[in-house]
Amino acid sequence: MKLRILTLLVGSVCAQAIAQNGGSPSQSAEAARLQQQIQGGRAKNIIFLLGDGMGDSEITAARNYQVGAAGRLAMDTLPFTGAVTTYSLQEVDPSKIDYVTDSAAGGTAWATGQKTSNGRISTSAKTDKPLKTILELAKELGYRTGNITTAEITDATPAVLGAHVNSRSCQGPADMKACPQYKKSAGGAGSIAEQLVDHKIDVLMGGGRQRYEQIIDGGPGEGSSVIASAEAQGYKAISTARELSEVHLEPGQRLLGLFNEGNMSMEWSGDPAIPYPGSGPQRCKEFVRPTNEPALLSMMMKSIRLLENANNDPQAAGFFLQVEGAQIDKRAHTAEPCEQIGETIAFDNAIKLALDYAAANPGTLIMITADHGHSTQIVPEPNAGNHGAGLMSTLVTTEKANMTLYYGTNAVCCASSHSMEHTGTQVRIAAQGPQAFGVLGVNDMTDMYHLMARALGAE
Amino acid sequence: MKLRILTLLVGSVCAQAIAQNGGSPSQSAEAARLQQQIQGGRAKNIIFLLGDGMGDSEITAARNYQVGAAGRLAMDTLPFTGAVTTYSLQEVDPSKIDYVTDSAAGGTAWATGQKTSNGRISTSAKTDKPLKTILELAKELGYRTGNITTAEITDATPAVLGAHVNSRSCQGPADMKACPQYKKSAGGAGSIAEQLVDHKIDVLMGGGRQRYEQIIDGGPGEGSSVIASAEAQGYKAISTARELSEVHLEPGQRLLGLFNEGNMSMEWSGDPAIPYPGSGPQRCKEFVRPTNEPALLSMMMKSIRLLENANNDPQAAGFFLQVEGAQIDKRAHTAEPCEQIGETIAFDNAIKLALDYAAANPGTLIMITADHGHSTQIVPEPNAGNHGAGLMSTLVTTEKANMTLYYGTNAVCCASSHSMEHTGTQVRIAAQGPQAFGVLGVNDMTDMYHLMARALGAE
Repeated sequence: MKLRILTLLVGSVCAQAIAQNGGSPSQSAEAARLQQQIQGGRAKNIIFLLGDGMGDSEITAARNYQVGAAGRLAMDTLPFTGAVTTYSLQEVDPSKIDYVTDSAAGGTAWATGQKTSNGRISTSAKTDKPLKTILELAKELGYRTGNITTAEITDATPAVLGAHVNSRSCQGPADMKACPQYKKSAGGAGSIAEQLVDHKIDVLMGGGRQRYEQIIDGGPGEGSSVIASAEAQGYKAISTARELSEVHLEPGQRLLGLFNEGNMSMEWSGDPAIPYPGSGPQRCKEFVRPTNEPALLSMMMKSIRLLENANNDPQAAGFFLQVEGAQIDKRAHTAEPCEQIGETIAFDNAIKLALDYAAANPGTLIMITADHGHSTQIVPEPNAGNHGAGLMSTLVTTEKANMTLYYGTNAVCCASSHSMEHTGTQVRIAAQGPQAFGVLGVNDMTDMYHLMARALGAE
Repeated sequence: MKLRILTLLVGSVCAQAIAQNGGSPSQSAEAARLQQQIQGGRAKNIIFLLGDGMGDSEITAARNYQVGAAGRLAMDTLPFTGAVTTYSLQEVDPSKIDYVTDSAAGGTAWATGQKTSNGRISTSAKTDKPLKTILELAKELGYRTGNITTAEITDATPAVLGAHVNSRSCQGPADMKACPQYKKSAGGAGSIAEQLVDHKIDVLMGGGRQRYEQIIDGGPGEGSSVIASAEAQGYKAISTARELSEVHLEPGQRLLGLFNEGNMSMEWSGDPAIPYPGSGPQRCKEFVRPTNEPALLSMMMKSIRLLENANNDPQAAGFFLQVEGAQIDKRAHTAEPCEQIGETIAFDNAIKLALDYAAANPGTLIMITADHGHSTQIVPEPNAGNHGAGLMSTLVTTEKANMTLYYGTNAVCCASSHSMEHTGTQVRIAAQGPQAFGVLGVNDMTDMYHLMARALGAE
């Protein structure tokens, strides 16, 4: 209480000092507001929002399309912004850099504070040691935990928080070709699907039901599906938007929502990018997601409701929630601009909710970043004399101007083995709340783990 | 004096408050340091550094090559960072957006606070009205002014500060095909070369001597070269690095340094990017600039020396200096990664000097940004099955790992009419000093004018 009064008092003295330091009243007020937002200390809650493959170019394309070049997305409104380097390590010689990360190594970086090689899920390059994750740390400290995505919940980004395995491909007990030593029948920790459940994460939602229907090959759950094993361990399993809206958990019960066999369905559709002169000019078709699958926003709203301390007891622990907008990446890989932008906007809708929640719960740290950049480039409208050899599509934005998106990093596209590439650019981070000022300047992705650990009071 | 003491006192109270607000001592100190850096008020000096085409991808490529992925460039070390939108307007209908700007419209945005169409130099789209520039404002307020570049000094970026014309192509009195109404013989303000001199900018340096050797076709200087006209108006004209190092100005004299007929020479060279499998792996050849041309760093050091108030009179006005690293853009257009990175590093060396100057002169506002993104992408090393159809080169970085740079936005490259394209991505800005906190978050390029105007005490 004493601390709180001191903080308020000093905030006001700081504001006054700025006012005396010159500048217009509105600028001085802005400076004072900003000074007050530089908060150390612990966060009651952490909401970490990861736009997979959402580099600056992908953000700009979505903004231009949806709210116009001068408009602002929810993700644009946070007070602190910085850049993040995303590189990974080479598996054969981890002293060597790999300048283009995948989501597994990129995710391991923010989730564990340590670099690894592409394809690895929270294990060290070459030596294959488990690396402790921020979700594990939060759990130890009594925080409730959530992990949601629009991809399969066993995909790389959600996997890095609650699994340790040498290959991201090991998503279910029948997918263990690349990691036989991790099989439960070999005495290992099992597939990503199994490990996420065994981690007792309070809320797990996304796609990937097919992984959870696979049969466990060893240990206590041997012979049963991963879903059955989850239920035996206290999870309530649901699979539709309606079940989600109506779900009620008993005390101590956890939630496993699996809303699609594979990745969840797209929010928008449109014509894919094609060679010159490209597809379009087109407006995207919105609202194409089947109604039995929930929006990311709905998953997030329910997650927060289930995770938060409803009694508002100041002594009770808060929550750590990871929210992935996964298919920004997947639809950049396949050069489908409408699908990509639709997923970016759906992700931004979730961000808007996080900001609303934080406004009512100011001890909440919000972080928004990407694990790597992607191929999307905004280029001048192509003509016969000037155009790339790759794929392109011209979209008609909300302000009725043409915007051409270009995807050129792979000449053969878009089978899964020949997709547009990730890029090695630094990406943007935005944050607000306790410790958020730590994102200013140029950071590495591993710094994000340490920032969150500080906000948990552990560093 | 009273203000200064108050500010120090409050700084210390703020620091204490943060220390009490939790977090480790080092984090608390960091928060307090940052709070103290949130300064309103006027800047004694403004150094605006523009990396032409220096998007996040171009920055990351240069960092990886020169100091390694975990290394830090000088431009990475500033306390405040944000994003900037760069779009321009369509000439035929300025109510419509052009999502990919050129350096003329991009420059007009930061130099005047107003959007225009591509190709225009500080004039309004369609209506061709002159737009007041930040250099003109600074001059009115008694600041000394400098404008230096590695391109021709008549190129778009330096032009936007001290010229108003409907086309960037009108660089010298013999280049007026696109703007006959601006010819001096037609009663106009003349070419960019003429206008820069007529603006009486205190320090003007770069390439572009050929523009200044052209003959003025009207007005007081009719029949003489622009250089002769400049000398008649009080400029000392120089053309070599040696002259630069030895130059001494009489009171009231101004400096015109023209060190190349066209753009200045490159700092580095190497093999250009070519189709798959690309050039390299290569290390770049450094130090290839002819010694009779100065480095950007040397031009900047001399500019500051000439512009600053050497007597350290607290009542005297300071200076406004624009420093352009111009050929990051030009060598991305031509897909020459070594040249591009060499120019980025040369620009960073100038930034280092600006930071050193600001450390000794804390009232200095430093801003570093780009006018638009460019085509450069850092991609996985290409192989037969996965590579783009564009141009690529693999560089061996300082940490002895391979980094592949890819340029794919134009299928025919690299004649001037078929070059790699600018991109419409938001770009990074970094700043420190009075008003610098204004760059946090997502800004538009026009906001940069207003931030500088506030720092000049004019808004």
